[in-house]
Amino acid sequence: MHFCPTVLLQAGLFVGFLQTSVASPALPELQQRGTPYERETSSIAAEVDKLLSRMTFLEKLAQTRNIGGILNPGVTYDEEFVEAFNNGLGGGSISPGNYQNPGPAAAAVINEVITRHQRRDRNNIPMIVVADSVNGVTLLNTTLFPATLSMAQSWNIELYSKVVDSMSKENRALGIHWVLSPELDLALEPRYGRVGEMYGEDKYLVGRFGVAYVKNMQAEDSQGYVRVATTVKHWIFGNSLAGVNQARLLGGVNDFYNLYIFPYLEVFRETNPLSLMPSYSSFDNIPMTSNLEYTRDILRNELKFDRVIVSDYAAIPQLQNRQHTAKSLQDCGIKAIAATIDHELSPPERSGMSTLATLEKNPAIAKEVHEAARRMLTLKFITKTMEQPLADLKNVNKTLRGEEAMKRNMDITRESMVLLKNDKILPLSKSFLSKVAVIGPLADIINPGSYAASDYSTGTTILEGVQKISPNVVFSRGCFRNNYTNFEQMRDEAVANARSASVAIVALGSVAAIVDGNVNDRTDGEAFDHADLDFPGPQVELLKAIVETGTPVVMVISGGQVFTLEYAAANAKAILHTFLQGELGGDALGEILTGKTNPSGKLSVSIPRRSDILPIYYNHMNTDRKEVGWQVTTDYQAPIVDRLPRYTFGYGLSYTTFSISGVSVTGTVSKTGSIKVEATVKNTGAVRGKEVVQVYFNQSAPEMERPIKNLVRFTKTGDLAPGESTQVNFNITVDDLGYWINGKKQVDADTYGIMVGSSSDDADLKFFNVIVQG
Amino acid sequence: MHFCPTVLLQAGLFVGFLQTSVASPALPELQQRGTPYERETSSIAAEVDKLLSRMTFLEKLAQTRNIGGILNPGVTYDEEFVEAFNNGLGGGSISPGNYQNPGPAAAAVINEVITRHQRRDRNNIPMIVVADSVNGVTLLNTTLFPATLSMAQSWNIELYSKVVDSMSKENRALGIHWVLSPELDLALEPRYGRVGEMYGEDKYLVGRFGVAYVKNMQAEDSQGYVRVATTVKHWIFGNSLAGVNQARLLGGVNDFYNLYIFPYLEVFRETNPLSLMPSYSSFDNIPMTSNLEYTRDILRNELKFDRVIVSDYAAIPQLQNRQHTAKSLQDCGIKAIAATIDHELSPPERSGMSTLATLEKNPAIAKEVHEAARRMLTLKFITKTMEQPLADLKNVNKTLRGEEAMKRNMDITRESMVLLKNDKILPLSKSFLSKVAVIGPLADIINPGSYAASDYSTGTTILEGVQKISPNVVFSRGCFRNNYTNFEQMRDEAVANARSASVAIVALGSVAAIVDGNVNDRTDGEAFDHADLDFPGPQVELLKAIVETGTPVVMVISGGQVFTLEYAAANAKAILHTFLQGELGGDALGEILTGKTNPSGKLSVSIPRRSDILPIYYNHMNTDRKEVGWQVTTDYQAPIVDRLPRYTFGYGLSYTTFSISGVSVTGTVSKTGSIKVEATVKNTGAVRGKEVVQVYFNQSAPEMERPIKNLVRFTKTGDLAPGESTQVNFNITVDDLGYWINGKKQVDADTYGIMVGSSSDDADLKFFNVIVQG
Repeated sequence: MHFCPTVLLQAGLFVGFLQTSVASPALPELQQRGTPYERETSSIAAEVDKLLSRMTFLEKLAQTRNIGGILNPGVTYDEEFVEAFNNGLGGGSISPGNYQNPGPAAAAVINEVITRHQRRDRNNIPMIVVADSVNGVTLLNTTLFPATLSMAQSWNIELYSKVVDSMSKENRALGIHWVLSPELDLALEPRYGRVGEMYGEDKYLVGRFGVAYVKNMQAEDSQGYVRVATTVKHWIFGNSLAGVNQARLLGGVNDFYNLYIFPYLEVFRETNPLSLMPSYSSFDNIPMTSNLEYTRDILRNELKFDRVIVSDYAAIPQLQNRQHTAKSLQDCGIKAIAATIDHELSPPERSGMSTLATLEKNPAIAKEVHEAARRMLTLKFITKTMEQPLADLKNVNKTLRGEEAMKRNMDITRESMVLLKNDKILPLSKSFLSKVAVIGPLADIINPGSYAASDYSTGTTILEGVQKISPNVVFSRGCFRNNYTNFEQMRDEAVANARSASVAIVALGSVAAIVDGNVNDRTDGEAFDHADLDFPGPQVELLKAIVETGTPVVMVISGGQVFTLEYAAANAKAILHTFLQGELGGDALGEILTGKTNPSGKLSVSIPRRSDILPIYYNHMNTDRKEVGWQVTTDYQAPIVDRLPRYTFGYGLSYTTFSISGVSVTGTVSKTGSIKVEATVKNTGAVRGKEVVQVYFNQSAPEMERPIKNLVRFTKTGDLAPGESTQVNFNITVDDLGYWINGKKQVDADTYGIMVGSSSDDADLKFFNVIVQG
Repeated sequence: MHFCPTVLLQAGLFVGFLQTSVASPALPELQQRGTPYERETSSIAAEVDKLLSRMTFLEKLAQTRNIGGILNPGVTYDEEFVEAFNNGLGGGSISPGNYQNPGPAAAAVINEVITRHQRRDRNNIPMIVVADSVNGVTLLNTTLFPATLSMAQSWNIELYSKVVDSMSKENRALGIHWVLSPELDLALEPRYGRVGEMYGEDKYLVGRFGVAYVKNMQAEDSQGYVRVATTVKHWIFGNSLAGVNQARLLGGVNDFYNLYIFPYLEVFRETNPLSLMPSYSSFDNIPMTSNLEYTRDILRNELKFDRVIVSDYAAIPQLQNRQHTAKSLQDCGIKAIAATIDHELSPPERSGMSTLATLEKNPAIAKEVHEAARRMLTLKFITKTMEQPLADLKNVNKTLRGEEAMKRNMDITRESMVLLKNDKILPLSKSFLSKVAVIGPLADIINPGSYAASDYSTGTTILEGVQKISPNVVFSRGCFRNNYTNFEQMRDEAVANARSASVAIVALGSVAAIVDGNVNDRTDGEAFDHADLDFPGPQVELLKAIVETGTPVVMVISGGQVFTLEYAAANAKAILHTFLQGELGGDALGEILTGKTNPSGKLSVSIPRRSDILPIYYNHMNTDRKEVGWQVTTDYQAPIVDRLPRYTFGYGLSYTTFSISGVSVTGTVSKTGSIKVEATVKNTGAVRGKEVVQVYFNQSAPEMERPIKNLVRFTKTGDLAPGESTQVNFNITVDDLGYWINGKKQVDADTYGIMVGSSSDDADLKFFNVIVQG
């Protein structure tokens, strides 16, 4: 009998949260690629044990370390820097670092380093290459997809799955066997700088995209090897205090289960992520990197997660210098290994794990280091790193930027923009296109966001997208993104251009990277939290000046965040949020502006009216927002309307209209049953288009406060022709309506509301009651 | 042997959190006042049991109800309304309601209602009168003290104790035997409307004032009866989400113990509050009114609190209509009684307790109703309500507004204002006083805040205070408090007045009640949360216009909240925050302006620079505010300086200067030891004054994130003459440096920082290390 990992994954061995009581798997047949590691036994677990039995404490400890960021610009690297990690002992993993190096050249250097270290290693254990992977591979010459948040606006899981499949192939082709994604964080706090890296504010939506990422990134080859291991992260994260990077999360055990780990439970149920990363934050005051209860106990004992837990970059030393919960660097290492952190990302001089080298005699530490090495080696076997640690450089160009990847990129880019307002101007008629003024500091750049491999030269900008659809385009930047230098002159030039044009396309927003050399333009991204959600610098003033010309304004937003849009919502003729686009953003925008593509994106994050009434997420508690009391509303106390979103989760316009009719919902069901929801979606407008059908639920009288509504299912229709209908069907297990109290799941016999429609706004939903019987 | 309650309180019987294993107390000798209740036994517990044994289920249930708000303006009341409570069965307590009725007249009506109900009652049980008591008695003709927040600015526990003693006597004189204070809530969220009712943001400071309140309000008479029972509330409250009234609190068990219940633990350790009120909010998603873990189990089982738990007004029905955690009104009642809520404040038609009338046969409910009645009857015995339920109207005028109370009021009013800025203008010289323009919509009103008994006619306004010190005062309102009606004309008149004056005193702020008939002026107070911390309406525009006249501006702030003061801090010559003053606010202000009184208040709440970077409290975690990462600070991302307070906790200026020198702090101590801190405070300036010496601590490497510093001791010196010194001494038990993990207190052997100085700002503190040995 041939036990390949595929079978064993299905049998539960690789399923972290199930008991791993089945027999050890046999290794798949080895391909003869000249890898120096020679297998001795026929099961991964036995192989790992054999290897461990020959390893010294220090050799095991080396597996806990990452050799990070080794490449400098120009594919150079400093050998001394690399040797500084573990005093040349090597590490468990290696990362290329700099994102602006060409993929094949970088992979060649990494191959060399791995090979050299492996030759030195008594046990011939190769390092595994680990890298970020958000918009694609974090090296150049690869396909640059939109950022995570952008792709989530598509609400198209099928398409996203294909995109991740392409990302996975390109990563593997470059020797990257392990990626530090997906982010299962909840984008509950728009002031936080990393929202662009997340899927959105809703735990269910995040879960669905997360499942798609893990399944497709970890796709198995014909022998059952995992192509590229994933890292679910950041365990746990959602709304750090006031949106401050690395600030703590407030919450208790009920928030933990019902909110924060919801996407993880979905991912664990349906896939087998091979690693997990704790967040920088503390939860209920205990740092997640050293949290014995919420990290070690719940993951290892309750959820049976036996895969690699990898620290976030420098999170271990930060126990001392940020959270102040450790006395020394060694104390940091002791606390992290006690929380069963297996692998550390840190610079050499700040490694907590390295400091454990002197503690071989401590049996608890020796045991945890052994376990960490076991998990790391297992990861290497499952990903075939032991046999094929290197990039196959001869064949790499067959994979990178292939036709299939580029088509998938174009498809998802078309669906990852959200039309927020359209006052009968889009698509632009020929007369509008006859003379277009493109204005704004976001128009002439590629804006892919943080952790994207881009030199900001490859791809189509907003300006270039418009140039492809109009014979007569004048461009003026209008202002700098975040400073007033030369503003009057730049604005006046833009105003003049707008005056002479039929339409003004005004591109405003923010950047999360140093896009065109201007360091101070960066107002979003990791550590770039923004207390104020207005557009940076003089951008709104520029918009006002253009609006005042009387030329109709189409506002195009670019940035991995939401902005307050009160002026634009009242004064622009149309607003299209493009979020963080990849290399094809300009092309897709052009198609949308002309109507060649009908926008079908829906918001996965709510847009507030002001910055001081957060949180704004749609699935709040009844008590969180609706003010009662004397009901005297003055202009000063936050008026109730100000606390409502300007544009809510699930919202997005199309050039056509849809009806959702004939909705039927199971009326009565048992606790173990399931609810069937059926509806007919019809394109009732004049052009082809896709609709996202959303199903929400709430509960009448649970034992704890539950949100006013929660997304429970969604689907995106195919491209419907005018007049065309399609049937959508959902099956909701009653168990999905349950919740956790003190870590125990319960489902109540109660009346539940089921809402079906086209956004999370009550006005867009049809309401049904379902009685769940005891 | 004569067992009076005093003895038994000391013996621990009345100490809620100790095991009540001592024998039942004997009743004190009854005074013969013709009360209809006749005692049969000689101990309270036995007396209560005897009484209970004769009571039906419905009679017990009646004890769980409050007959609330019976009086209308003009001391009228609607008998039908009163009879609607419990279908005429009466209740356990009664409340006068309307705060604008004269005390003696209201008490006469209440006496009558109590008597009528008591006569009807088979068991002759009187109702107990319960009322709010924040600035004093909530009826007119009593002493109107400053609001709680204002008095806390004094940091003068001794003086506050005397004030509460006066409040207590006035309450009792009017037959009020039970008050719904103190608020041990933490003012962590300045956008919340009820900050004016709280002591401040710091848990230790709140605890100290809370202890003083309970001790002095509950002062015992010569026989050991408690004069007026107190209610510690709201269990638990501090920072409802975004400052929204009744929104949930985020947090877990560690926040619960280390932060929220800290003041309660202080109060329970040192006093015996006879009741407690849960908050409207939920904590970790479970409403506190029905929270079995955080209310019932921790209070009843762990802290052994066996006193009355009284619901907040309508909090029980709100389980259904706000939190949506109950199916029906009866379900609300069931959930509340299960959480051992003993007594309900609710309108008759929305009483959850009343709906339990049909559930006599349910043994769990019958048992809890029995327990609730037991606790209520015990409260009535301890407060002597059983024997003297009525106000002694013949003698009431001897007590109300007595000389002692008025003196104490003046003393605390002088210390309850905080001088925030003084650019060499205060105290005002005679030349300034020769012609004063008083300007602003807060100048000509009494502003005592919410839950204050005031008809807004009694007392000295800011304007009147200035008129007492200057021969030549012109007044112009300048604008309405919260609307732009007639603004230009009003502003121009004020500008003209300012131009012709030597100094402009500009009084801005907010009101939390309908002060002068203008409903829309109310922008603070319960249900009046304010997302934006700017001054309401055109007030800042008015200030700018006055500053631009060039006449020096002394800004006087009035309101139970903090405001963003960026313009004022840069442009006013002086800023004095008066918070919510009682009837003597104008007089004290006049004294401060002339220098007759040297201001000695210190902030108990931090003042932020903007509204979108909250929280701002001083005792944050290291990770909460200081941004790291790339350290590229742009103008847009919240600049780090913007996240620092404009004026921090513990800060306040004086007309003199002080040195704190010769500080000695114990260097090494055992876990069971205590740390001695000694210092010399010297008045180094030219006028008499008082200084608040503050001691903070932090810990080097605890197991959880702890605040960067926490207040651990403070004291206020006496009035020091120029050149005069005094010695201050603090004794800090090492146990006070500990913290709770998962509900268990621990004290670590570690290095602790001890900081001694005049505010929470590092620049005002001297630093010492203390080593606590294992």
